[in-house]
This record gives sequence, structure tokens and C-alpha cells, in this order.
Amino acid sequence: DPKLKIFALSSNKPLAEKIAKDVGVELGKVSVNKFSDGEIRINIEESIRGDHVYVVQSTSAPTNDHLMEVLIMIDALKRASAKTINIVMPYYGYARQDRKARSREPITAKLVANMITQAGADRMLTLDLHASQIQGFFDIPVDHLLGASLLANWFIDRNLGGENTVVVSPDHGGVTRARKLAEFLKSPIAIIDKRRPKANVAEVMNIVGNVEGKTAVLIDDLIDTAGTITLAADALIEKGAKEVYACGTHPVFSGPAMERLADSPIRNMVVTDSIMLPEDKKIDKVVQVSVGELMGHAIKRIHENRSVSPLFEKQFK
Amino acid sequence: DPKLKIFALSSNKPLAEKIAKDVGVELGKVSVNKFSDGEIRINIEESIRGDHVYVVQSTSAPTNDHLMEVLIMIDALKRASAKTINIVMPYYGYARQDRKARSREPITAKLVANMITQAGADRMLTLDLHASQIQGFFDIPVDHLLGASLLANWFIDRNLGGENTVVVSPDHGGVTRARKLAEFLKSPIAIIDKRRPKANVAEVMNIVGNVEGKTAVLIDDLIDTAGTITLAADALIEKGAKEVYACGTHPVFSGPAMERLADSPIRNMVVTDSIMLPEDKKIDKVVQVSVGELMGHAIKRIHENRSVSPLFEKQFK
Ligand SMILES: Nc1ncnc2c1ncn2[C@@H]1O[C@H](COP(=O)(O)O)[C@@H](O)[C@H]1O
Ligand SMILES: Nc1ncnc2c1ncn2[C@@H]1O[C@H](COP(=O)(O)O)[C@@H](O)[C@H]1O
Repeated sequence: DPKLKIFALSSNKPLAEKIAKDVGVELGKVSVNKFSDGEIRINIEESIRGDHVYVVQSTSAPTNDHLMEVLIMIDALKRASAKTINIVMPYYGYARQDRKARSREPITAKLVANMITQAGADRMLTLDLHASQIQGFFDIPVDHLLGASLLANWFIDRNLGGENTVVVSPDHGGVTRARKLAEFLKSPIAIIDKRRPKANVAEVMNIVGNVEGKTAVLIDDLIDTAGTITLAADALIEKGAKEVYACGTHPVFSGPAMERLADSPIRNMVVTDSIMLPEDKKIDKVVQVSVGELMGHAIKRIHENRSVSPLFEKQFK
Repeated sequence: DPKLKIFALSSNKPLAEKIAKDVGVELGKVSVNKFSDGEIRINIEESIRGDHVYVVQSTSAPTNDHLMEVLIMIDALKRASAKTINIVMPYYGYARQDRKARSREPITAKLVANMITQAGADRMLTLDLHASQIQGFFDIPVDHLLGASLLANWFIDRNLGGENTVVVSPDHGGVTRARKLAEFLKSPIAIIDKRRPKANVAEVMNIVGNVEGKTAVLIDDLIDTAGTITLAADALIEKGAKEVYACGTHPVFSGPAMERLADSPIRNMVVTDSIMLPEDKKIDKVVQVSVGELMGHAIKRIHENRSVSPLFEKQFK
């Protein structure tokens, strides 16, 4: 009988452990090393012939190394006769390069989708893609989980939500995401509307919606340099918000992110463990909620040929 | 009219300059950077619509970054309507993972060939592949140059060669390569024959052929940790060689390579500039001969629809 096997590559072993625990299996044996010259060496140390294999890997930094690991793993699994190869990629790197904004730009998010498919993956399980359209870059089935209900739980557990809370999108592009969180929290929404009144004049941070005296909860999909979210927090305080929280699925946290977060009026920055954080990025105000159970449940449902969407459309507990 | 354009990515700009000079064009304008989170950003800063584009990039360390650069560049060129996309890859990384030596191993050299092809490359120009079979991993035309004649020139210029010189292969796998160099030098060959007389007994370095009193010239395709070549040099001195030189096309030089070379009786380690060396690896005894003209000539011949093989089958000057 084909077995369900889960393997972790090097980007996020702690999350893979949580996923495997939820599914009720041990992680498969694989060693991921580098040769002396830095080339990746992968040894799968148990038979996977005829099995359904799930490979857990986020393409967080170092993105190119993490991506290459997953491609080499797919190649090895395919040549070793795995029955199906399922990629579990909580964070999908290169997602912001998803369209040509200027002449002669690459569309790297599509290139990566092709690479994963052509290496031999049969299915993709991912979480909060920067743009949902990236699902269409794949010709294999993509299960796209949403983290909003898990982020919402953190606030609900602290009695936040309702009319005294307002969910705020830091830009126009994120309104749908804010709407989703607001449904879970039963709160109204607001939008930060950056405008440049004239050319060569500084941007004005206008807020559409009422934030005065309220607890504001900012939401974005990924927090990279934290510039957008910390500027938005400043504007909310200035407009009379009582306190400001922020949440976002993917803690990319690059460049000046940690100093900006530390210096910001944001009380807590709530993120998931889609990306593993090094110790120096686990500062007090950063809270990580785990997507381990959500992804574990999704793997079980995929394995049973059931839809994964009920997992995140209702409150996931 | 379609133009011939040459672009350099980040692995080996000095070689790309030499190639462009030989071809008689300026390098095309491209910027290769990283976003704050380490993802690669490429901007092609001139039109290439309808042009024949050559991209110079070795997949030397950091191999995954250099590989990803070339794939993203191909994607951008394809979307910007280049007429043909020609990859000039003097050093082809991951070439040693070219077969399954054990169960469940990947064949990364083939994976990489697929990635380059499927990204949209039309043609590949490369140099001294670790195994010639890698040409067959591609379904696009591959021009495979050999560096032996350039390495030979260095010795001929120093009046080495003839019967007082012996070309030595450090292992069984490299005899064909040694044979080729020996033809240019008009010298006999010898082979280092490592044998383990019994299990659990140290390897014996036996030498097949006569080296006593001669100038020995070791040759390998790539010099990685320099273990093979320095042990071979010790054995040659022990067997009475007058002096030992070593040559090899690709100076990978990882791990303990530099100390081993410095401590070895090898007089000069002659390599090419297929891989750019950082300053600390340019020690006195390392000599780099340039493949810039060879590759430049090859590009011109490809552009004129002529075969490249006459370039390296006879002495290239
Ligand atoms: N890793 C990255 N870091 C920062 N910006 C990026 C990254 N990748 C792509 N971009 C740029 O981000 C923009 C798209 O972001 P967005 O409008 O949020 O979808 C495009 O202009 C991209 O060139
Ligand atoms: N980057 C690398 N560094 C050292 N050894 C490697 C590397 N890539 C592959 N190999 C191993 O080298 C062997 C093949 O080398 P060769 O016999 O010289 O063709 C295989 O056992 C590979 O597993």
C-alpha cells in the first residue's frame, strides 16, 4: 500500500515537525548538505518507491538555495519512483515578481512555477500567495490556504474585535485581505490612502474610515522591510487610534525591519511560522502563531481526496 | 537587422569583457542586484528586441545564485522578444552530479540542463564539461569547447614538451584528457593507478609509465579541493620526476585547495579564467590563461553559422 511520507528540507524544520505531528507520522529521513564548493547534496535515506511524498520547504532567504533544494529533491524523488510528489511551500518566494511592471522585466514567479512543475511535482500546497493569480502559473493542482482565521484567533483570544476594533489595510492592494480578517473579528475596516497632492510634494497619509479611539489592527500578507506597516502605524496614532497592532502571514523581516518594528508604536506584530525566524528576530513584540495544524489538516484532506477550503473559510481552531 | 549583443551577469565580468572585445562589441547594459530580502533583481537597460543575445555566466560558487541569475535573465530576454538566446557558460556547475551512483540520488546536471532549456535558451556554448555526456542532457544545440590547446600553449611557450616531458592523468577517468594534451606537447603519457592491495589497507599510488628524470605535467578538468592533484604530485616526485606542473581548466578551488597547492611540490598550477578568482586565490604559483579569445572566436563562428570545432582541434593561438 502506498504510504504518506513527509520530508523536511532545510528552510523550516520546526514547522515540518509540527505538520508531521498533526498528520501522525514521523518525518522521513533525508540529509541536506553542501559539497565543499557549495553545491547542494541531498540523500534520501529511506525507500519512497510507490509512496505519496510531501516535501516541506519555504523559499525564504536564502531563496535561491532553498529553491534549488526543493528542485533537486523533486528530481531525486521522481527518479526513485515516488507515486506522487507534493510540495508544501508555506512561503512562496519571488512572488512579488509576478508581472511585467516595466519593459524587459522577468516574471520570476512564473519561472519558479515552471521549474517546480517541470522538475516533476504533482501538486502544490501553499499559503497566502502574494497574488492569488500565481495559482494560475501552475498547470498542476494548487491548494491555496489562507492564514487570516489563525491571525484572527490571536486577537479574539485577547477579546479584541467588534465595533471598538478597526481592521486597517496599509494600501489599496490589501483591502480584500483586510475585509477577510474584519469578518472574523466582526469589525469595520479602514484604508490608508497615500496620495501625492502635486508632483514633487511629499505623500500625504490620508485614512479612509474611522479609527479615532479604536484599537487598530493592520494587516498585510508579507512583512519585508516593515516600512509600509510602520509608517501606517504612525499615521493611525496621529489620527487618534487608541492602540495599534499589526499582523501578516509571512515574516520576511529583511534589512531595517527589526529596528523599524522595535521603534514603532505597534504593540504586537503577529505573524505565522511560514518562515522560520532566527533568534535575533524573535523580539518581544513579535508573536508567531503556527500554521502547522492547518497545513497538517490540509495534507490529511488532500490524501483523502477532500477539499481543503473548509479549513480556512470558517474559523480554524 | 538583428544585432549580436553580449551581456555579462555577475559571475565573471572580466572574462565577458575579454569575449566582447574579441567579438568587437561593447557589453550590453544590464544591472544585476538583490532586493532587500536577497531575491535577484535583473534590469536589462537597452532594447534587445529581435537581436541575437549572448549571456556570459559561469555557474561557479555561489552556484545557486549564479544559476538563478541566468534563468531570470533568460526569462526577461524571452519576454522582451530576443530573436535567439545563447548561453555562454564557461564553467557548468553541478556537472559531477551527472549519474545515479547510489539509490535515490538526483541527477542535478540534467535538472539544470532542463531548467536552462525550459526557461527559453536556444543554444549553449560551454567549455570542458566534466563529462561530455552532459551535452546529451540538452535538446538544444551545445557547442562544447576544449581548453587543452590553450593549456598546452603555456607549456610550449616555456619550451616544455617532447620526450623529456610526460603528461600525467591523476586517475583512470582522465586518460583521454591527458592524451589530448600530450598530442599538443608531443610527449608520452603516464597514469596514476591508485590501488588498495587488500581491504583495510592503505591505497598504494602506483604509476603506469615512465616519469623518472622527466618534467611531469598533471592534468585534470576541474581542481576543487586539490586533493587528487597534490597527492599525485607527491607520488610523482617520489618516483623520481624532475619537476611537477599541474594544469586544469576550471579553478573551483574550494575548502583546503589553496593551502594544499601552496604546500605542494607543484611549481605552477595552470588554469583558465572560466571561473573568476578572488584576490586571495591568486597566489604566485597559480597561472590563469584566458579563454576569452577562444570563446569570442566561437561566438563569431556561431553567428556566421560555422562550426566551432576547428578552434580547439588544432592549436589555438
Ligand atoms: N523581493 C522583492 N523585494 C522588494 N520588491 C520586490 C521584490 N520582488 C519584486 N519586487 C518589486 O515589487 C513590486 C511588486 O510588488 P507589489 O506591488 O506589492 O505586488 C514590483 O515592482 C517588483 O519589481
Ligand atoms: N560539488 C561536488 N563536490 C564533490 N563531489 C561531488 C560534487 N557533486 C557531485 N559529487 C560527487 O562526485 C562523484 C562524481 O564525481 P566523478 O567520479 O569525478 O564524476 C559522485 O559521487 C557525486 O556524488
